[in-house]
Amino acid sequence: MKAQYTIGLDYGTNSVRALIVNVEDGREIAAAVWTYAHGTQGVILSRDPNLARQHPADYLEGAKVTIREALRVAAKNQRGFKADQVIGIGVDTTGSTPMPVDKEGQPLAFRRQFASNPAAMAWLWKDHTAVAEAEEITALARKMRPQYLAKCGGTYSSEWFWSKVLKCKRSAPSVYKAAHSWMELADFVPAALTGTLEPDLFTAGVCAAGHKAMWSASWGGYPDAAFLSKLDPSLAKLRANLTPRVKPVNQKAGHLTHEWAEKTGLKPGIPVAVGAFDAHLGAVGSGVAPGTLVKIIGTSTCDIAITPTRRVLPDVPGLCGIVNGSVIPGFYGLEAGQSAVGDLFNWWVHYIQPGGKTPWSHKDLDEAASRLKPGESGLMALDWNNGNRTILVDQRLTGLMVGQTLYTRPEEIYRALVEATAFGALTIINRFEDYGVRISSVVNCGGIAEKSALTMQIYADVTGRPMKISRSAQTCALGSAIAAAVVAGAYPDFARAQRRMSGLKEKTYRPNAAAHAVYKDLYKIYRQLHDAFGTREFKGSLHGVMKSLIEIREKARR
Amino acid sequence: MKAQYTIGLDYGTNSVRALIVNVEDGREIAAAVWTYAHGTQGVILSRDPNLARQHPADYLEGAKVTIREALRVAAKNQRGFKADQVIGIGVDTTGSTPMPVDKEGQPLAFRRQFASNPAAMAWLWKDHTAVAEAEEITALARKMRPQYLAKCGGTYSSEWFWSKVLKCKRSAPSVYKAAHSWMELADFVPAALTGTLEPDLFTAGVCAAGHKAMWSASWGGYPDAAFLSKLDPSLAKLRANLTPRVKPVNQKAGHLTHEWAEKTGLKPGIPVAVGAFDAHLGAVGSGVAPGTLVKIIGTSTCDIAITPTRRVLPDVPGLCGIVNGSVIPGFYGLEAGQSAVGDLFNWWVHYIQPGGKTPWSHKDLDEAASRLKPGESGLMALDWNNGNRTILVDQRLTGLMVGQTLYTRPEEIYRALVEATAFGALTIINRFEDYGVRISSVVNCGGIAEKSALTMQIYADVTGRPMKISRSAQTCALGSAIAAAVVAGAYPDFARAQRRMSGLKEKTYRPNAAAHAVYKDLYKIYRQLHDAFGTREFKGSLHGVMKSLIEIREKARR
Repeated sequence: MKAQYTIGLDYGTNSVRALIVNVEDGREIAAAVWTYAHGTQGVILSRDPNLARQHPADYLEGAKVTIREALRVAAKNQRGFKADQVIGIGVDTTGSTPMPVDKEGQPLAFRRQFASNPAAMAWLWKDHTAVAEAEEITALARKMRPQYLAKCGGTYSSEWFWSKVLKCKRSAPSVYKAAHSWMELADFVPAALTGTLEPDLFTAGVCAAGHKAMWSASWGGYPDAAFLSKLDPSLAKLRANLTPRVKPVNQKAGHLTHEWAEKTGLKPGIPVAVGAFDAHLGAVGSGVAPGTLVKIIGTSTCDIAITPTRRVLPDVPGLCGIVNGSVIPGFYGLEAGQSAVGDLFNWWVHYIQPGGKTPWSHKDLDEAASRLKPGESGLMALDWNNGNRTILVDQRLTGLMVGQTLYTRPEEIYRALVEATAFGALTIINRFEDYGVRISSVVNCGGIAEKSALTMQIYADVTGRPMKISRSAQTCALGSAIAAAVVAGAYPDFARAQRRMSGLKEKTYRPNAAAHAVYKDLYKIYRQLHDAFGTREFKGSLHGVMKSLIEIREKARR
Repeated sequence: MKAQYTIGLDYGTNSVRALIVNVEDGREIAAAVWTYAHGTQGVILSRDPNLARQHPADYLEGAKVTIREALRVAAKNQRGFKADQVIGIGVDTTGSTPMPVDKEGQPLAFRRQFASNPAAMAWLWKDHTAVAEAEEITALARKMRPQYLAKCGGTYSSEWFWSKVLKCKRSAPSVYKAAHSWMELADFVPAALTGTLEPDLFTAGVCAAGHKAMWSASWGGYPDAAFLSKLDPSLAKLRANLTPRVKPVNQKAGHLTHEWAEKTGLKPGIPVAVGAFDAHLGAVGSGVAPGTLVKIIGTSTCDIAITPTRRVLPDVPGLCGIVNGSVIPGFYGLEAGQSAVGDLFNWWVHYIQPGGKTPWSHKDLDEAASRLKPGESGLMALDWNNGNRTILVDQRLTGLMVGQTLYTRPEEIYRALVEATAFGALTIINRFEDYGVRISSVVNCGGIAEKSALTMQIYADVTGRPMKISRSAQTCALGSAIAAAVVAGAYPDFARAQRRMSGLKEKTYRPNAAAHAVYKDLYKIYRQLHDAFGTREFKGSLHGVMKSLIEIREKARR
């Protein structure tokens, strides 16, 4: 039998990637990347620094260009490869990235009169124009429908669907009025590829709807009309225009149209999976399973865990979201995250640029910091330079460093920053476990996981858990390819598909008992600072903080 | 009438300086500096990083070399100058810097068998070998004689007289046994120059005895024998050998001997003032007066104020010392200080070395930080990288920085460090005022006061008080020369001598009302952090700290 392949299409912030994966063993035989044509590095900006939009035309052009190029590369790399060996497509995207569409499901941005109107574009996940609307939604839900907030950590974000829709209503009423409905990018691409953009065919994914639009089967779908009307009477009408078909990623959005088959060179009629967010399918590509947390570590982190739906799961305060089937059907998908990880290290290296005439690189600092013992610097940091996503859900928090002397060196501060992100990671793990979601091992993916042995060892030592590294460097696209394999029928379920198609690198970082013991003491100090600066409830004195750090330092240096 | 001059001899940590000053107008006509010959830059070190000693021979050699050289330079600079126009000598030194002496008042280090024994040398102020002894003395005094602690901020320091003596008894018993008595450097030099080293002639200064040896006329001199015996029975005998003649700096220690006249070229018989500490005579040289605080700003600061003894002064908690007549007779001398000021800025510039391939100099950072508005960075620091001398008297405190974002820049951190030292300075001023010592203006001296307009403007804006700059760059030596003018009879008292011999630079930094208003809000946050990390009593939440800093930042950037 001839080998079978699937394609994972991964829509990032600046570019889209197509990855061709062997269904049997997960080998990645070809990839192609295309940077969106509009805006700056694919992002349309304005004088308002909070605004970030994308042009939907780039999404379609990107699918065409990258699939064609990946097929070309595959044919070169793999003797005898033919495009008709591709049996399915999966799609993951950033989100919440909603866009206004007309009655045919076509983006308003495709119309001439809206062609250069940012409000008619896709509102990129990191667009922060809707802060006031988010606060309004949070306040109303707290009063009227607390259950809506319970599943999204207690605070509705300015980055999410309803905030952006409401902001459009208020700031660009003509666009809002012209829109029949709104579509998430994760749903738009599969629908476009399968010719199901029209309302009576259109399918939305559980992942985007559940995590960003307060959709839940348990309360009958999207937020109820009474609630939405209180925000704005017109939202009840919009609600009626949203599709009732909201499905997980093991379902097909449809089949590739002849038109798209021609555009790309693929076989017409192959299934396209329902779309989901990059982090969620990244978790799939990293082998997420009950008891295994996947950390997608980049400038920030996204942490994904799953837990069987047969167990009753209490609401976990501070999590970005808990959604039935948002990662893998049959499991609750739980999403957490840290607002700055790689960005925090980048700040030290690129903004402060320590080290004088021969400035420290990441690699230099990694090496020098590796030679330090836990606790030896006497430093402790909070990893909040970009706020705290989980468990405090508070963007109005900032960084903190304590324990500096007149001899504190750049690599000590660097290590303290790495440790701070590790303490932040442990705080998330503890929150999962406190609410019954056991985390016995962690799979990491992303550049830092692959490149910084220091970071991974500190994560192991701080959390007391082995740190595994995902085999693939493109876990999001791989996860999409796995979804494609499932909808194409190559595997009956995700667990079996993951077992064959995803994997780990050989190297696992195991916790060192002595280091873990020191970090246990240090974590108590981290939690004191975390609670003192991050919560209203903390009432203790911090008189012991500097003294304990000195004692631990003296012990470490002995 | 021919002009009259006095000499100020200023014994620093690494060198001694002789300054020749015109008695009528304070003009400094010649100076000479000599680095001590023994040890590293004049300091004898060992494998124990806490040990710091000096060889007493350097003190005598230094007096000879610098006075001769200063006279030579004066003759060159000042047409017709003759050495016999010098009518008196004043001496200021580091302290507490005690040394063991024999029955004739000669340092034990001058004996062959002790010539290279560090215990027989002068125990330099920054020697920290006696930490355990200091704790023991503090504990005993707290129980038995709380009044002893009330005048020195509540904690007896390892840098002070009795700690060092007791440490010698325990760690070098043969030296201790050979010592008849112990002498402060501030007393040794005047006694040596005037041939009054022998016990029945020897005079000690109020400044050293009062600030470092728990001497007070109010309880009959040095700590009582019962108290000292509890520490060690032999200390009662030592107490009996300490001189009962303890006098302020308007008194003569004696008159220059023929031997010293010959050595130096000065006229024999001219008076030498009782010695005092550098900071105290530095305050005199800067024009200290009731209501005027003198800040001697170097790597750390020493803050000196005076208040008339006709007023009853309550004990001021956290001050390093309150001693009747230690600065100027008829006034209480009050000493406070900050453990790191210049050192804190040096840490950022020389240890962290921010700025990449073209690292920031102090001057660069000063300029860039000057362009920032108060509150604009959103940062707040505690100035405790070297502990906190006043008002917390706690060396086991460390630095803290809060408010960092992913865009925080080196000059913002630099400015936050400068502001932190300003907030620390205000905390000291407030403590003075809370206990009835009014501080309406501040005279600053030292390199930072002369070179950093940024620092002085921030000090004015934070404290809401004008910052004046001492005219002399050698205020300590100038203060000694003023004391010499008083003991030589050129002036009836210090106030009149200061009026003629000391002065201010033209430039005064005046507080800007708008900046002061912002700093008032910021200071509230500083005090929250100060109390939370520095005291046991603080019980509030710090939940508002980061948020308030963000609000102030947003307002400043508007």
